[in-house]
Amino acid sequence: MLALQIAALRRAYREGATPVEVIEAVLAKIAGDRTEGVWTQLRSRDDLIAEARSIGASHSVGPRPPLFGLPFAVKDSIDVEGLPTTAACPKLAYLPAESAPVVQRLRAAGAILVGKTNMDQLATGLVGVRSPYGIPPNPFDPRYVSGGSSSGSAAAVARGLVSFALSTDTAGSGRVPAAFNHVVGLKPSRGLISTRGLVPACRSLDCVSITTLTCEDARDVASVATGFDDGDVTSRPEASNFRWRARTVGGPRIAVPRTEDLSFDGDGLAERFEHALETLRLMGASLRPIDMTPLFEAGRLLYGGPWIAERLSEFESLLGESPESLLPVIRTILSQGETVRGTEVFRGLHRLAKLRRTVDPLWSAVDALVVPSVPAFPRIDQVLADPIASNARLGLYTTFANLLDLSGVAVPSGLCRDGLPSGVTFLGPWGRDAELLATASAFHRRVGGPLGATGWPWIDLTEPPEAPAGGDLEGTRRAEAPRADRLAIAVVGAHLSGMPLNHQLTERGALLLRMTRTAPSYRLYALPNTRPAKPGLVRVADREGASIEVEVWALPSETVGSFLGGVSSPLAIGTIELENGERVHGFLCEAHAIAGANDISAFGGWRSYVSGENAL
Amino acid sequence: MLALQIAALRRAYREGATPVEVIEAVLAKIAGDRTEGVWTQLRSRDDLIAEARSIGASHSVGPRPPLFGLPFAVKDSIDVEGLPTTAACPKLAYLPAESAPVVQRLRAAGAILVGKTNMDQLATGLVGVRSPYGIPPNPFDPRYVSGGSSSGSAAAVARGLVSFALSTDTAGSGRVPAAFNHVVGLKPSRGLISTRGLVPACRSLDCVSITTLTCEDARDVASVATGFDDGDVTSRPEASNFRWRARTVGGPRIAVPRTEDLSFDGDGLAERFEHALETLRLMGASLRPIDMTPLFEAGRLLYGGPWIAERLSEFESLLGESPESLLPVIRTILSQGETVRGTEVFRGLHRLAKLRRTVDPLWSAVDALVVPSVPAFPRIDQVLADPIASNARLGLYTTFANLLDLSGVAVPSGLCRDGLPSGVTFLGPWGRDAELLATASAFHRRVGGPLGATGWPWIDLTEPPEAPAGGDLEGTRRAEAPRADRLAIAVVGAHLSGMPLNHQLTERGALLLRMTRTAPSYRLYALPNTRPAKPGLVRVADREGASIEVEVWALPSETVGSFLGGVSSPLAIGTIELENGERVHGFLCEAHAIAGANDISAFGGWRSYVSGENAL
Repeated sequence: MLALQIAALRRAYREGATPVEVIEAVLAKIAGDRTEGVWTQLRSRDDLIAEARSIGASHSVGPRPPLFGLPFAVKDSIDVEGLPTTAACPKLAYLPAESAPVVQRLRAAGAILVGKTNMDQLATGLVGVRSPYGIPPNPFDPRYVSGGSSSGSAAAVARGLVSFALSTDTAGSGRVPAAFNHVVGLKPSRGLISTRGLVPACRSLDCVSITTLTCEDARDVASVATGFDDGDVTSRPEASNFRWRARTVGGPRIAVPRTEDLSFDGDGLAERFEHALETLRLMGASLRPIDMTPLFEAGRLLYGGPWIAERLSEFESLLGESPESLLPVIRTILSQGETVRGTEVFRGLHRLAKLRRTVDPLWSAVDALVVPSVPAFPRIDQVLADPIASNARLGLYTTFANLLDLSGVAVPSGLCRDGLPSGVTFLGPWGRDAELLATASAFHRRVGGPLGATGWPWIDLTEPPEAPAGGDLEGTRRAEAPRADRLAIAVVGAHLSGMPLNHQLTERGALLLRMTRTAPSYRLYALPNTRPAKPGLVRVADREGASIEVEVWALPSETVGSFLGGVSSPLAIGTIELENGERVHGFLCEAHAIAGANDISAFGGWRSYVSGENAL
Repeated sequence: MLALQIAALRRAYREGATPVEVIEAVLAKIAGDRTEGVWTQLRSRDDLIAEARSIGASHSVGPRPPLFGLPFAVKDSIDVEGLPTTAACPKLAYLPAESAPVVQRLRAAGAILVGKTNMDQLATGLVGVRSPYGIPPNPFDPRYVSGGSSSGSAAAVARGLVSFALSTDTAGSGRVPAAFNHVVGLKPSRGLISTRGLVPACRSLDCVSITTLTCEDARDVASVATGFDDGDVTSRPEASNFRWRARTVGGPRIAVPRTEDLSFDGDGLAERFEHALETLRLMGASLRPIDMTPLFEAGRLLYGGPWIAERLSEFESLLGESPESLLPVIRTILSQGETVRGTEVFRGLHRLAKLRRTVDPLWSAVDALVVPSVPAFPRIDQVLADPIASNARLGLYTTFANLLDLSGVAVPSGLCRDGLPSGVTFLGPWGRDAELLATASAFHRRVGGPLGATGWPWIDLTEPPEAPAGGDLEGTRRAEAPRADRLAIAVVGAHLSGMPLNHQLTERGALLLRMTRTAPSYRLYALPNTRPAKPGLVRVADREGASIEVEVWALPSETVGSFLGGVSSPLAIGTIELENGERVHGFLCEAHAIAGANDISAFGGWRSYVSGENAL
């Protein structure tokens, strides 16, 4: 079977595979696989083949969109035009007028929607057994749950039926099933991905989350999925320019629950968490045990506290008018919200504000908090026997995240001795998503193990990936002009790509706009006694100059101050005239400093001088 | 009587008045004035004189703190060490262990606390009649209310008993009494001024507000009062560096309620509002009528909706255990919160989020929204006859502000024909406080009229004010070094203080660190054909240079990009060596550009060259 991991499938497309071939393979896999309980609806073969053919034809030449030909699934609480949205509650089903904006973005980027996935009814549950559409058995052992509420999405990815899936995550609905399926569950910071077109669970806390086999896959999907949506009141303007690429933090500072805050049902998960901590230590991380009390208290506000009234607030009339349309367990849970008084909600909001303030300092002290994704791994029969307590137990390490406005990545941490998967979750403050993904990726690669339940090989990502998305370096390398919030700066020497100070640009999120040359009015000198070695560019009278190689980078305006802070004598940022007559800011050298310096203008640029080992 | 308007009192202090003399005058005024219902507690004469003497002695030489010797009052829901906090509910009174942080800040800056002021019980009311400590009669006509809940604070300022007062403002408690007393009520953006040590009304919405005679006075007090407080969960980190100084917007774009959204009880206030709009037009404002529906709807959430449960949430046990300790009207209002269900609160929160999103685009389209501060001006007997409806009516133009996270300044708009005062409120989004104050100040000066009920003269502020506070230009001119988030830049020519491009620094919030000279290694040239005229500074061999006058400014790091964007050829930002050997970034000139330029190094600096009319 063709591997659907995004990097693998992109390679296959580069080597000549077509979307039609990929969709044929996906349909064959779905037909042959054990997929009971995974789907609520599959698109027809005819539709899928036609769409694949159309996408292939539209991009037969030229650059391909970032998610070209990637098959994906969508949780059935998210609107897809032409398919009813059920939220696993058939009585509630409706045919949406349009797809959710996040679905529109993914399809516009070339992804092919295969079908909609099963879930705990109304996204109420972490177990994956609360659905009239069946119970997806765990792919590692069918006696066990797949987790929920995004049960079908996690199962579809783990079984290799799609490249990625959209899930949701309010109390842990994306992270818990990721752990049980040994896949990645990215729970983005709230407001980065539009939640319009989503049947709400707790409207103020809901996130669309992304389920994939690797962190890189999650990043590439998130890059496309992210964007401000004026029609979604929870959408945040920061989504417009959010960066999904970050470097791995070397020797990260990691908070972990202190021993007394860790609890597991069974030895397997406990062992795996110990192993995960050891892996982090081997990565050079410093581990710092922290008191989880305020986080756990925040989490209890959701399941045992006033937020249950938020869940009810969406379905109060449904519960009153046709309670029989809800599964008994969902009815029981929602009914708890009826007794919550208004004053309790406000006291809960005040308490939560206090807890946030208590937890906040943690995020400047550490790069991430790493917790087990789940404290237990129940069998289906156990959950059916004790539906509410077993469900609440599963949220121990997840329920607080959205209340505290955190970002999170649930990532596999290898198989237990009994062959069941385990997972840990990297958590950070709002907006630290990209850094968490980078660190989680390094962890995941070190832990290794199967990608979901697929058996597909890991892909070496040291080769440059294809342009994954708008908004990051590769994706905008082709940009024509800097935006208004960026300053174009021409660099001449140690800041050129691959040179020792280039990181001063990239770590500030600068984008390479173009490689070009100056007007023929400059001289370039090798400055003596500089480390790293640097050249100095000096403008001269018009006929005495040469045209010198430069790179023009677009530096985010807010970072110019710190960048300029690192520019020291005799260098300065002034104006450089380019060969096309355009003027941009760039590195110049004070003329007094070139007394005695070697004129290297004849090399045409610093790169040629350096690579030529100073010999013309 | 000595005028207590801050600018006037500062002038008196410059001319030799002492804090003891000022306090003596204040005590005499209080003793002689009609002040029933204004105070809940006054500090003893001995205490006040001793404190005044101590403050005078501590600052007999050297620079004085920004609020040196200014008498002020504090609403009795805000903690002051040594005085019980009553919130106009004697049964609730307690002796606080320490003063509220905002009070500590003001006293540390030299202000002298005279006493605590009356208020509507538990800050529940906009009328100023709900207190066991009496009803402060309106200073313009004792038959009328003074407004509330900060009734005593507004009355104390309007009657000229103090220079300023602290009030609070949840639903309009600072703005409404400001209107009825013809004084300024600054309702800052939430989270700028700590609310720790405040008896809460609606904890998520409460603001400490500032009551003064002029907008400049409010700005100077706010500059001191503002600051992040880690112990207050509603405090926002932006408070640390908040700027209270802004320029007046020329020809501001002003939104006003469309005609059908304006309603007044009586012609006087309607006439005054028409007059206010005419004044704005004369100021060059463009007026844009807007639909107030979403704002009014947000406002109704507070009084008629779920937020009444937030009010109750603080006093639920008090109401249950000793209802007799509350005035009957307060009991009635709080009891309404008992019927609010949790689901209603969440639906209210969702609705409010939607309303905020609906209103948000307004703030990029206009510089301010101007509304009447009050729609009615009831007599005391009218309010006592119909306490709840008459109160709710007063909040029409105020209740929505904190729910929508707005900044606001209530400012006098002159007297009606019957001699009663009127007021308008300038509203903006979170953080626009300084700009609103600047525009409101221009409006206030144009409208004129009495300062409160004092009869004190307006002060011409064109003379430079004394250093008013930390955090703005004058206050930090003495700073020794730039903070980490600022970049020191030496300017040489058109950016010097008073020079044509200096505004490029000041409008970015740059601070002048010092005036100094370069090391004697530079030459200064008058660059030909520059407009405005500019010099160029070029480093030369050590013995060939001169020492040139420079100013070192600290530019906020995030504005360096836009500042550098305006620096054009042949100027550059490089490194300048100062006469003390220190190196800072600063303006240099490309050497090639000085061919043919006039060497003006002998003037010692650009300022001498320009003022010398080019003749040495």
